[in-house]
Amino acid sequence: MTNLNTLFNAESVAIVGASNNIGKKGYEILQNLIQGKYEGNIYPVNPKDDEIQGLTAYKSLTSIGAKIDLIVIVVPSKFVSAVLEEAGELSVHNAVIITGGFKEIGCDELDASMLNIAEKYKINIVGPNCQGVNYTPNNMCVSWPLVRGKGPMAIIAQSGTVAAQFGIIADKDSIGVSGLVSLGNKSGLTEIDFLNFFGSDPNTRAIALNLEGIKEGHQFLKLVKEILKKKPVVILKPGRTIKGMIAAQSHTKSIAGSDKIFDAACRQIGLIRANSIDELYDFTKILGFLTKPAGNRVQIITSSGGSGILATDIFEENDVDMVEMHPRLKEILSKKLPSHCVLSNPLDLTGDTDAARYEVCIEEAIKFDNADMFLLIFGDPIPGAYEVVNRLSKKTDKPIIVCYLGGGEIEEEEIYKMHVAGIPTFPTPTRAAKALAILCK
Amino acid sequence: MTNLNTLFNAESVAIVGASNNIGKKGYEILQNLIQGKYEGNIYPVNPKDDEIQGLTAYKSLTSIGAKIDLIVIVVPSKFVSAVLEEAGELSVHNAVIITGGFKEIGCDELDASMLNIAEKYKINIVGPNCQGVNYTPNNMCVSWPLVRGKGPMAIIAQSGTVAAQFGIIADKDSIGVSGLVSLGNKSGLTEIDFLNFFGSDPNTRAIALNLEGIKEGHQFLKLVKEILKKKPVVILKPGRTIKGMIAAQSHTKSIAGSDKIFDAACRQIGLIRANSIDELYDFTKILGFLTKPAGNRVQIITSSGGSGILATDIFEENDVDMVEMHPRLKEILSKKLPSHCVLSNPLDLTGDTDAARYEVCIEEAIKFDNADMFLLIFGDPIPGAYEVVNRLSKKTDKPIIVCYLGGGEIEEEEIYKMHVAGIPTFPTPTRAAKALAILCK
Repeated sequence: MTNLNTLFNAESVAIVGASNNIGKKGYEILQNLIQGKYEGNIYPVNPKDDEIQGLTAYKSLTSIGAKIDLIVIVVPSKFVSAVLEEAGELSVHNAVIITGGFKEIGCDELDASMLNIAEKYKINIVGPNCQGVNYTPNNMCVSWPLVRGKGPMAIIAQSGTVAAQFGIIADKDSIGVSGLVSLGNKSGLTEIDFLNFFGSDPNTRAIALNLEGIKEGHQFLKLVKEILKKKPVVILKPGRTIKGMIAAQSHTKSIAGSDKIFDAACRQIGLIRANSIDELYDFTKILGFLTKPAGNRVQIITSSGGSGILATDIFEENDVDMVEMHPRLKEILSKKLPSHCVLSNPLDLTGDTDAARYEVCIEEAIKFDNADMFLLIFGDPIPGAYEVVNRLSKKTDKPIIVCYLGGGEIEEEEIYKMHVAGIPTFPTPTRAAKALAILCK
Repeated sequence: MTNLNTLFNAESVAIVGASNNIGKKGYEILQNLIQGKYEGNIYPVNPKDDEIQGLTAYKSLTSIGAKIDLIVIVVPSKFVSAVLEEAGELSVHNAVIITGGFKEIGCDELDASMLNIAEKYKINIVGPNCQGVNYTPNNMCVSWPLVRGKGPMAIIAQSGTVAAQFGIIADKDSIGVSGLVSLGNKSGLTEIDFLNFFGSDPNTRAIALNLEGIKEGHQFLKLVKEILKKKPVVILKPGRTIKGMIAAQSHTKSIAGSDKIFDAACRQIGLIRANSIDELYDFTKILGFLTKPAGNRVQIITSSGGSGILATDIFEENDVDMVEMHPRLKEILSKKLPSHCVLSNPLDLTGDTDAARYEVCIEEAIKFDNADMFLLIFGDPIPGAYEVVNRLSKKTDKPIIVCYLGGGEIEEEEIYKMHVAGIPTFPTPTRAAKALAILCK
């Protein structure tokens, strides 16, 4: 098994092709490493400059004269082999090759030459033709855009854009990521290697995958099955349709295989499939935050009747049980809530509600073994909601998730606090309900 | 037909129950009216204060001593009839009743009394138990939250939260709305009245509906059919499932009716159904921006191969034709693009692309009658993309839409400019492709 520890926890990074010119990848990656507050040594390499972005620049890897854990290559493809050869001589064991122009455009001989050198010197290759790697525990973003938020989810993606978008969503959602990997051509390291790393990584609680073709299907499924015993994995694998499959094959130059067979295999090992970037994010998030409830009975508590109905449809369509409220619970709540609240499922506290009404409902409901999980919907910003939910979620094993609608600055702050407290929030009733349905699977 | 002109274009608004206390609805609505830069006369009414939020306050409607086009009522339900009676005596013809506590909690006599007075004095009633009205051409937000962006879409919603969320999304998306209406109990004005207004409103190019129950089904369908000749209408009607329908009936105290029958009726008149708030927004947006293409053949042009595949699956699943590129077009582009670009559908310009590559592709492709519409995907911020797309979209009748991923400040500015130029943008390939599929219907 390839050990990727010196890659992700590299104590020094050289960027071959670092640049002072905005717009160049060699500019952006160096900038992200600096602005991301990477604490290791950074060595910009470029024969044309003495100083790059305020750092001493080196003419070559050799001229650095210090140990290098990782090199990032952005120079044109024809120079890559020479850089690798030099790196190998210096005992560098990890290379992220951003540069494209290898087998993806039919230049198989460049690929072969590069792989020969990598094998000779035992260099781990990420890419080529990739968008790099970001590992937040090491503040090491040799990728773009800069994603700094540290969170429980890692993504391993065929598409650099999907990885980037995942990171952006996670950052905006006040969660962040543990790691982002753009696989590129997978000439060296593949999803297998990264799954092994993140599967054992204590900073990663859930893994999102975006794959278009899978090289070693049997090995992949066996590994995922093992990892699923420890942490959840979700996969976005396009190519469900014939033309989608053809496009995937063309993109990755690999056989995508029948989607039906892949789908059956996923079901067998319990690998959750997402059908969009949003689903990949939502499903990984809820599985990273919460564990499977004891059953599939849900109680909705809402201040917005209409939003409760939207969630109800999704639960019903996804085999989540919109259980009837316990008669005794109804009786108790009827004495504690204003008479215009609707004591049913959804439990509608109506638009004039405050945090105290949610508090009494949750407090009483968790005493009964009538629902296995709760969806709380806040149709307006409700001051004090976080304190209530945070306190009560610690008193129960039943999953509690939150949907915030109606907007406002209060909510953004509350969302942040909820996430820190381990309570996942979602932006619409539909997305919240779909995610909760996945948690029950 | 009820004329709602003096409601939406009111030249003076009195807020009965206006308040200096943050947290009160009477505070928030007055504040939104002021901060929204409403240019008419604002009369806060509250017997306890002389001044409210810097404005002269009045003890009663009568003491205002000037013409009032619209009153907004936030005082408790038991006082509403008296306020309406006073308003009627003063020839006020429009009342937005935010206050709840009427038939939705079984207080039918309060409802009857209120309606009697409204009928006697010919007062249009919005609500009661609603979240108000916002009409941006008049800078008049007697609702919450404050949505100021002026855009082509109106929403008429049973759920105040859905209306609010729609407005927030539209504002964040740099589009805005023409009007937002929260229907509440629909004791007076119903969806029929508002459909009539927005159907003829020159500021509204597309109408979004969120209804849980429809009172006069036949009249509703007939009216929508008429409006559809002039502008698109999209509906989010939850209650697809049995429990969803029961929840809807409980929420609106009306018979929701069979979803299958409603669905068939929608198909018959061409009323598009959305299944989530995001879909309601996306579908209304694309229909408000663009007209139906001549056929259903789409060409994807992307810088992100993976994103192109995600969109391909959605097109294939929604009967949109991922047409093969014209051989002659391939030939032309093969001479103008770098050799590593993939000349197919999706047309993959790869990650190192610039705006010029998009330009040549669109420029050449619109000369052929091979595709009826284009989905452009930008996997990274691409400087100059807006100028290219804006110029070329004016040279063709074929719809062009844009998907921005990968994030960054450049994009937010570009999205704004695209929308101003009438080019709809979407945040994921999946949402973009679903919306384009709707445009073909």
